[in-house]
Order: sequence, then structure tokens, then C-alpha cells
Amino acid sequence: MPSEFALIDRYFKRPTTHTVLGVGDDGAIVRPSPGCELVISTDMLVSGTHFLPDTNPEDLGWKTLAVNVSDMAAMGAQPRWALLAAALPAATESWIEKFTRGFFACADAFGVDVIGGDTTRGPRNFCVTIFGEVPAGQALLRSGARVGDQIWISGTPGRAALGLGHLQGRHALAEPDEYLAALHRPQPRVTLGLALRGLATAAIDVSDGLLADLGHILDASKVGATLNIPGLPPPGPERDGLLAGGDDYELLFTAPAARHADIAALPAMLGLALTRIGTIEPGEPGVPPRLTLLDADGRPVPTDQRGYDHFG
Amino acid sequence: MPSEFALIDRYFKRPTTHTVLGVGDDGAIVRPSPGCELVISTDMLVSGTHFLPDTNPEDLGWKTLAVNVSDMAAMGAQPRWALLAAALPAATESWIEKFTRGFFACADAFGVDVIGGDTTRGPRNFCVTIFGEVPAGQALLRSGARVGDQIWISGTPGRAALGLGHLQGRHALAEPDEYLAALHRPQPRVTLGLALRGLATAAIDVSDGLLADLGHILDASKVGATLNIPGLPPPGPERDGLLAGGDDYELLFTAPAARHADIAALPAMLGLALTRIGTIEPGEPGVPPRLTLLDADGRPVPTDQRGYDHFG
Repeated sequence: MPSEFALIDRYFKRPTTHTVLGVGDDGAIVRPSPGCELVISTDMLVSGTHFLPDTNPEDLGWKTLAVNVSDMAAMGAQPRWALLAAALPAATESWIEKFTRGFFACADAFGVDVIGGDTTRGPRNFCVTIFGEVPAGQALLRSGARVGDQIWISGTPGRAALGLGHLQGRHALAEPDEYLAALHRPQPRVTLGLALRGLATAAIDVSDGLLADLGHILDASKVGATLNIPGLPPPGPERDGLLAGGDDYELLFTAPAARHADIAALPAMLGLALTRIGTIEPGEPGVPPRLTLLDADGRPVPTDQRGYDHFG
Repeated sequence: MPSEFALIDRYFKRPTTHTVLGVGDDGAIVRPSPGCELVISTDMLVSGTHFLPDTNPEDLGWKTLAVNVSDMAAMGAQPRWALLAAALPAATESWIEKFTRGFFACADAFGVDVIGGDTTRGPRNFCVTIFGEVPAGQALLRSGARVGDQIWISGTPGRAALGLGHLQGRHALAEPDEYLAALHRPQPRVTLGLALRGLATAAIDVSDGLLADLGHILDASKVGATLNIPGLPPPGPERDGLLAGGDDYELLFTAPAARHADIAALPAMLGLALTRIGTIEPGEPGVPPRLTLLDADGRPVPTDQRGYDHFG
């Protein structure tokens, strides 16, 4: 196996487009845009916990960066720079070559300069730190939802979870391709996040599941919610995937009812479905925010399907 | 074991002093200082590779952040913000409590706001990303060494390696305390790094070993060097530690001979020894930079002691 330094040179060092100093010194150097704040996020992906050990390495490379790009989308930030730290077993070079091909494909797709990292031997683990820019004060937070706001979701959440269930033999999909693509090649909603600046009051990306991630918004905003999801599937894997499946990286956001027309105009501009799924309700002081899910007949559906908790 | 969210609330979330938005959203938000560039570095520490599994968790917490702070020192940057991603086995809460106590002690010591992170289950692995600031154009790079520059080292490199050898039974130290302190509680040379802005031509922190890290400066600067180290120990563990021992996090730097008096004035100001150990020589085009080590009698010492390479 080549040395750590040769590996970095060969696979982890690519030309940058908007960076003062990239890979190769004790640190990278970037020049932030005047008037912008930096939004920063880090995610660690562990073999067996976040991905199956036999996942296609090129898909894994894409997804490792994509889930971080999605955090920028959820904040309304333009992704700009990323660092990749990787612990690898005595991997074959061909595995690393494929992984980095997927990783850099995602970097190129979203205009991210990869400016540094670390490689070391160990059980397979990838840690990406990403940072983006947003004009000062315009980031989308979880804490801004207000009573009366409408709740919206992009795309079709639940497909990644259904794809995973198919792979694990928990159910069989007749045409699994789009579900597996949602699982392996998530498409962070960066353009939507940028369009929601000044429009959405709160936003989050669906990584833990729709109900769990909405719960994070309700907690942070100290409000409740009623969900009335158009076409809610009957009980079964499809409903479970929609309500509790993580890994889709769709954006869940709230916006004032007065901005309904502005939101409704976005799908045609962005080529991305947006569905209104509910309304923000008052919270009650001293009790956890309440989330009520209604079925097609307006009857409350019991919900105990919370998202994935790594230590729960 | 408490949930991921409870763990983060209890141990990883502390008040910040210079951050717009800390832990708890999809990303943290910081406002960079006008006129400054950001210096960014990431390091991954793996159990068994970078630390012994039975290392005291409070020491480990300190060191996990300190090695990253040291990268800021080596660039002449003021450390400002850090993120911590941690994969943990089914650890006891008391282990996490001790680890974070050491980690935040280091953050407090160097004025670092801890603004985000990630916790997940997996083989023990810590990944820190750190951000610092430096006035535009003033960062210390590896590539700036010029022929005739003097080569300097801070402190007493080699102590951490001797401490590790003592722990592993490879040799016995009569009074191991200061060596073990160097190994477990490295003191990043931030104040020195800041003082070297506009003074040093190149700098690096000694993490792989003095010869190996000097090699990085020579490679990046396309120059050679002659080392004439005062009091070079005879062959044995002490010499090995000095030349090839990593983990000390002293600063190795070059500066013009004309600035000798400025450098020589620093130890009294900083309370930190600085030793001149050699001179930058011309490189030869087309061959790797040559490093000549002389003994006390001016005779070349054969050197094949390169630093630690995680895949070599």
C-alpha cells in the first residue's frame, strides 16, 4: 500500500477554484466573502452504523459529502469548502480511487473546494466538515417557526428508507431503482435552501425522519404542529418510510401563510415538488411541543415513530 | 446509556464567547473578523493508532484538541472555533464526562469556542476541525524557507516519545513525570506562532518527528538543510526521540539570519526556550531536498530516521 502522503497526493488533492491555500500545509487558508457569515457543520459516518460495509465505494463517496452539503442547504447557505478525514483499514487502492471519485463528483456538482483532510489507519470512518456562506443574519434556523406558519416538505421523503428495506429483505419493491438512487445518491436541496432565504421561517433537512426532524423544529421554536399530509399512505412500510425514514435529505421548512404564493411558485422554477403538509400550532408552556398527525378523514393517528437515535 | 441528544446537551454543549450560533442547529454560525483569512485544519485520532486504549480520558480529551490548536500555532493563526465529531463504543457516561472535561479545559486555555460536532456509535474515533484567524497574507507556510535562513526549534522535542517508550517498557526513565506530561498534555505554542508572524519564513509543528517535519519544510520550499544540533545526544533512545519522535508539538521554523536578534529576544518574552539547530542550504534541481545532520565534531551522521507514516 502506498504511504499516507502518496495516497493524499494521488487521491485527495485536487485543484481548487476559490481557496487561498489548499491541501499540503498545517492548515488550509480561505478568504471569507465580506458581509457574509460562515455556516459550519461536521458529520461522521461509520461503517455498519451509517452505511453497509459492502456499499459501492463511489456511491459512498458521493453520499459522505452530500449529507454535509445538505446541512448547508438546510441553513440557506451556499456550500463553499469541505475537509475530509478518513480512517481506513488496509484498503485496496482501487477502493480509495472509487470512493474519492464519488466524493469529488459531489464536490464538483455543488461547487465545493476540498481544502484539507487527514488519512489514518483504523476501522472505516469518514468525517467531513463543511462550511458555507450566507449574508449576515439570513441563515435559516430551526428556531424561527411561528404559530400559523405553513409546514412544507420538498420531494418525496421515505424513498431512501424503502430502498434500504428492500436491500435488507424487509419488503420487496417492484421497481427499486429510484428508491436505491434516493438511498445511495441523495441530492441535497441547495438551490431550494438559497431560494428560501427571507421566505422560510425555519428549516431542517430530513435525516432522522420527517416526524423526528419536525420535532427538532418544534422543540427549537417552542411551538406545536398539526400535520395533514396529502395522500398519507395506509399503515405499512410506505407510511413508516414517509414518517420515520431518514436519509432522504429533503428540506422540511415553515413559512408564513402570507407567503404561500411565493412558495407555490418555487416548484416550477426549481423543478422540485413542494407539498404543504401542515400548520404550526401554539405550544403549551412547560410541556414538550405537541405534534398531531391527522389521517385523510381528519382523525388523529397515534405516532410513536421517532427518528433514529444513535445511542437510544 | 442516555440518547445521543441527551449526551450532546449534557457534555458537548457549553457557552460560547464569540459565536453567532453554537451547537444545536444544522450548522453553527460564526462571523469572521474583517481583514482576516481563516486557517482550517482537521485531525482524526483513532484508538490504538494515535492513543493507547487505556489512556486517561481527561488527558485524551485535552490532547485531542491540543494537537489541532498546534496546527493553528504552526500557521501563526489565532485559534477561534472547533468542532468535535466522536464515534464511541457503548462507553460509560463517566468516561465521556472525563473526556469532555479535558477537551473543554484545552478549549478554555486557548480561547476556542466549541461550536458543533457529531456523536455516533462505533469504534472509538475523534475528529476535530479547528478554525483560526490570521490577518490576510500573514500566515506562516511550509514553503517560505530561503537559502541562508536559520532553523529554530522551540522547547525540548523528543520528550513525548521517551515518555511513550517508558510506558511501553522499551526503556526506563528515572523521573518520567515531565516526559509523560509532554506525551499526555502537549502545550501548543500558540503565543510563539503569533509572535513569529512577519518574522519566520516557514513553520511547522513537530508531530511526525523533527527530521520528518523539517523534511516537509524542505520539500515545500525546495531547499536543503544542514543541522548542527547543540548537545546532540549519543546514539540511543534520547537521540531517536529528539530526531524522530513525534507528538511533541514544538514549533520548528526558519527565519532570516538578519532577524537572529529578534528571535533570540523571544524566549525571555514567552518563557519558552528556542534553539538554533541549523541552516537552510540550496536545493539541487531534480533531486529530493538534502538534509545533512552533523555531530558535535562536525561529522555527518547517517539519517534514515523518517517520521511516522500511517500507511508506510
